Amino acid sequence: MTHPDLTHPETLRAEIRAGRFKTMTSGVGGNALQANLAILPAEDAADFLRFCQMNPQPCPLLGVSEPGDPRLPVLGQSIDLRHDVPKYRVWEHGELVDEPHDIADVWREDLVAFAIGCSFSFEAALVEAGIVLRHQENDTVVPMYRTGLQTRPAGRFSGPVVVSMRPMLPRDAIEAVRICDRFPLAHGAPVHIGDPAQIGIRDLFDPEYGDAPEMRDGEVPVFWACGVTPQAAIAQARPAFAISHAPGYMLVTDIPAPQAQRRLASV
Amino acid sequence: MTHPDLTHPETLRAEIRAGRFKTMTSGVGGNALQANLAILPAEDAADFLRFCQMNPQPCPLLGVSEPGDPRLPVLGQSIDLRHDVPKYRVWEHGELVDEPHDIADVWREDLVAFAIGCSFSFEAALVEAGIVLRHQENDTVVPMYRTGLQTRPAGRFSGPVVVSMRPMLPRDAIEAVRICDRFPLAHGAPVHIGDPAQIGIRDLFDPEYGDAPEMRDGEVPVFWACGVTPQAAIAQARPAFAISHAPGYMLVTDIPAPQAQRRLASV
Repeated sequence: MTHPDLTHPETLRAEIRAGRFKTMTSGVGGNALQANLAILPAEDAADFLRFCQMNPQPCPLLGVSEPGDPRLPVLGQSIDLRHDVPKYRVWEHGELVDEPHDIADVWREDLVAFAIGCSFSFEAALVEAGIVLRHQENDTVVPMYRTGLQTRPAGRFSGPVVVSMRPMLPRDAIEAVRICDRFPLAHGAPVHIGDPAQIGIRDLFDPEYGDAPEMRDGEVPVFWACGVTPQAAIAQARPAFAISHAPGYMLVTDIPAPQAQRRLASV
Repeated sequence: MTHPDLTHPETLRAEIRAGRFKTMTSGVGGNALQANLAILPAEDAADFLRFCQMNPQPCPLLGVSEPGDPRLPVLGQSIDLRHDVPKYRVWEHGELVDEPHDIADVWREDLVAFAIGCSFSFEAALVEAGIVLRHQENDTVVPMYRTGLQTRPAGRFSGPVVVSMRPMLPRDAIEAVRICDRFPLAHGAPVHIGDPAQIGIRDLFDPEYGDAPEMRDGEVPVFWACGVTPQAAIAQARPAFAISHAPGYMLVTDIPAPQAQRRLASV
């Protein structure tokens, strides 16, 4: 028996759908764009859509489904959001109630799905440019922080901008701004370089999410708006019902990551 | 009698040529690209051309004249380099011997002129983006430093990269990288942000050229490769004969500064 080609997004999603691929999606799907997923009832969806549109750097919208329709053809003809993510999280009134591998049984006719860009795309471009990413080198999770920067609120959705941090030499930080600026659908250019206190981070070595960083001589912390921001806004809003991907278990699209360099046609 | 329109480059150069405009060119010429000027005998010109091409960030070449030809049509049909700069400097064996307003009497059939991009273009773009430049605000000369970074040598031309520094809040520094990266003919993106010692600058408040900076709370120093670099390389090479513009008395071209966003056709 031959192994399925997990660098091919459609093959990978078929494996996920069949329940044979249940692990994190880092390193699979070839160079396909991966997405954060948020699913909300229609009654909350309009506010959340506005929230994303007003905060494009932490919440770059890749695609929004029709209400009740589990497909997202703009990101892949064969995508079925009920089955195609390896692990979901189901929330009720802000409480985590389940972590299923499939959400067909809880799918509803009023649900709207939001696919939101993630950092994988720009990280691949940085690595291609010869920049070593510390969290990859150390096999840790990138550190993430709640900041004093506030999102623009929309209806019940609001809260702090969450940022991820990658330590770099200044020359790499400059190169990272140049590169990431080309990826508006993957959070774009960094939002801050240098003193963490300037954006309300009290302790660089005690992140709210991910692992504590290792900083080396001459390096500066470089901060990017992070896809945890919309998750934090949903957690804070405590909607009656919501579904998200489990952290690290992303939606793998058919879109080649380099296309995150421009707005997708339908967004 | 009406006053000539000094925002029009051709009118401005006619005034300079007639000896009626003898001051610095900052703020005149409208949005036309201004250039550093270096003129060398043919025997040194080939090495210097190579030097510029190997060090495009400090020495972005806008145009090179034919040997003996004082015109530079690629930058302006009416340009005559013997008359069109308000103040020149004439060098012999590395010593400054004269500061004339016209060089017709010392022009030679073996001279080659180099027009090199300057920071005025990107500064205008930064100001347009709402970034306040401290040296403009304080009406001082931008501080410039010899660094520990070395140019790539070519023949007798070599030496340190000279940088200019503008203090900024980190968010403006990030924006400045994004903006200046679009101006490769005006030194491009910064070469360093933060700790001056990392690029061999011992005292930020004691620049080799220009005025000492004022740094305010929360600001970081942002460093750009500077057009003084080729001048320093020429001074170090001590060619038998050379002519340059006097600092601040630039060659005003016909090229609209926004075109510094791409390589000029003939470069």
